[in-house]
Amino acid sequence: MAPGLEIPQNGHLEGKDIPSSPTDEEVTKSKVTVIGSGNWGSVAAKLIASNTIKMSSFHDEVRMWVFEETLPTGEKLSEVMNRTNENVKYLPGIKLGKNVVADPDLDNAVKDANMLVFVTPHQFMEGICNELVGKIRGDVEAISLIKGMEVTTEGPHMISTFISQHLGINCCVLMGANIADEIAAEKLSEATIGYRENKEVANRWAQLFATPYFLVTTVQDIEGVELCGTLKNVVAIAAGFVDGLEMGNNTKAAIMRIGLKEMRSFSKLLFSSVRDSTFFESCGIADVIATCLGGRNRKVAEAFARNSGQRSFDELEAELLQGQKLQGVLTAGEVNAVLRHRKCLELFPLFRTVHEICIGHLPPSAIVQCCENNTAML
Amino acid sequence: MAPGLEIPQNGHLEGKDIPSSPTDEEVTKSKVTVIGSGNWGSVAAKLIASNTIKMSSFHDEVRMWVFEETLPTGEKLSEVMNRTNENVKYLPGIKLGKNVVADPDLDNAVKDANMLVFVTPHQFMEGICNELVGKIRGDVEAISLIKGMEVTTEGPHMISTFISQHLGINCCVLMGANIADEIAAEKLSEATIGYRENKEVANRWAQLFATPYFLVTTVQDIEGVELCGTLKNVVAIAAGFVDGLEMGNNTKAAIMRIGLKEMRSFSKLLFSSVRDSTFFESCGIADVIATCLGGRNRKVAEAFARNSGQRSFDELEAELLQGQKLQGVLTAGEVNAVLRHRKCLELFPLFRTVHEICIGHLPPSAIVQCCENNTAML
Repeated sequence: MAPGLEIPQNGHLEGKDIPSSPTDEEVTKSKVTVIGSGNWGSVAAKLIASNTIKMSSFHDEVRMWVFEETLPTGEKLSEVMNRTNENVKYLPGIKLGKNVVADPDLDNAVKDANMLVFVTPHQFMEGICNELVGKIRGDVEAISLIKGMEVTTEGPHMISTFISQHLGINCCVLMGANIADEIAAEKLSEATIGYRENKEVANRWAQLFATPYFLVTTVQDIEGVELCGTLKNVVAIAAGFVDGLEMGNNTKAAIMRIGLKEMRSFSKLLFSSVRDSTFFESCGIADVIATCLGGRNRKVAEAFARNSGQRSFDELEAELLQGQKLQGVLTAGEVNAVLRHRKCLELFPLFRTVHEICIGHLPPSAIVQCCENNTAML
Repeated sequence: MAPGLEIPQNGHLEGKDIPSSPTDEEVTKSKVTVIGSGNWGSVAAKLIASNTIKMSSFHDEVRMWVFEETLPTGEKLSEVMNRTNENVKYLPGIKLGKNVVADPDLDNAVKDANMLVFVTPHQFMEGICNELVGKIRGDVEAISLIKGMEVTTEGPHMISTFISQHLGINCCVLMGANIADEIAAEKLSEATIGYRENKEVANRWAQLFATPYFLVTTVQDIEGVELCGTLKNVVAIAAGFVDGLEMGNNTKAAIMRIGLKEMRSFSKLLFSSVRDSTFFESCGIADVIATCLGGRNRKVAEAFARNSGQRSFDELEAELLQGQKLQGVLTAGEVNAVLRHRKCLELFPLFRTVHEICIGHLPPSAIVQCCENNTAML
């Protein structure tokens, strides 16, 4: 542990700061704050904290901004986290590392950090970024772990771009086959960091996240990596339909392959800089595989197909997701608006058909029929 | 149906020939013979027969060389096939098309054909090719559907090359996510044809195989396509270990991705002409997915891992495969010999570890450990 840095053992953290007389070494060390404390945010903090405590170029402490909640016991989530070293609500049973400090005050959580990890639900990002303007250090680097950007006819609203523009900072992305609970259990996983220009910064992020069981690669294709994290949900909906129709593994493999192909084509349609090789990385093929084997997009789509489309997605979402909207359904709609606007719907039979099925214009079996005899598939 | 061509309704087929006074059109039509009558061979004949009967540039009749067997009823397999139009032993319940003619006489089956489809177990190929020398037409084109070539330290023995060299003919390959029973049930599937130079010939083969539910692409990368069909079995063994260890979908996706990456690297090590893009085709990613979801390589490897390696592959093969050897285990051994010979085992931690586990030198859990912290994975 770095000299002079106390790991707090209680909930009284507000106003906690770096030591009053830091050494030169302390000053040049990177200080990390994780913005977000859900399931994936907690796992990210665990990964990072296991590294900062071992590497002298990082401050041991990882601060984690917690959207404060009152637990059924009447206690505050952040206080319980700091006492138990667990996110008892979103990642129970997993110790995050004693150097993780939960902090419900966003301004305080970021004020000393020069490395910000964004990992909140994407609908919170606008409010968070507005709040952060003028509050962060001048030398801050950011990374976004947020999947599920919005895509409009003007183009995709990349979350990394949003962060960069709002806060005037560089922002990388980290995507991949990352089922949080499996990484929390330290099972082998991989991830891909996408960066725009500065490879050294990307390598620094990789150093911060990588553990023996969490393998991280970097690729200079931020748009390709970030789009994968969103578009794969549309493919997972298609795969769920195939599962519900009990079409077998050939068909499922074909649909997943065609889906990955349309992800690639769509990404290149939006950004000519996108590289094919990105789709061989964890963010591409591996995330498609993991999401099409498990995941709630696949699951709800399977239920939809088993009901032959007689129960709407709205109804199934209300039942299975407690009213949350399914990301893949939203993205399929957005992608279709873009394709219609650009007059190239016919080049994306799978993306198009997923949307038509989701809105009830076609039956689930159309997911297979759209491929049959369709040369755009080839 | 083409004029003058009778579809036989009984078993008396030997010596059956094209009509005695063929028109010019008849003479220029392509005539197809399928060499092999197992599960996949029968499905291939069904696909082909559904096309030849509709396309005027092919003779309706598809001849199928059957390795003759006597059924428990005492009848000959070829006779029952021609009477019932089903391969009652290897694809029961599926009508092959009345224009499929089973023929137990290899010389007779090929003598009029100018398109030969090879789809036998690979260990029969040497004998068959020896038998065919001097018996085939001068203008014959061939395609191999045979997965599982032998790989020796001198290099892989590509079955397409073997056919080309032994018979002095051009030979394409067709590979992909092709679980025969699912294609027989007319469920959506895809395949990839690899060719060396002549794209027109490859397109002709695609025309012969493609149906609305069987989508075929062509790529100029015969070695890449053919190697996929063999190497994917090694990846399936690795995926089976992960299933047996109950590591979850992240890990399985990671292992499949790393496996596909090693398939690509190994293929390029052997043939610099191999293209990355081939691995996005059905023969690459889709076949890896289908084989790692189902398939007997995966299944036996899962059983092996569940027994913590306490029961050998030999034992499990004897029990689960009636003494047949598992292709992936054989291929893993062959691939390792090549890598050792070329002194680059350390670049292929997954292929290497699959072999070490199969021969009992490492426990099944090594499949995950070999990836952890291994920069060759990245």
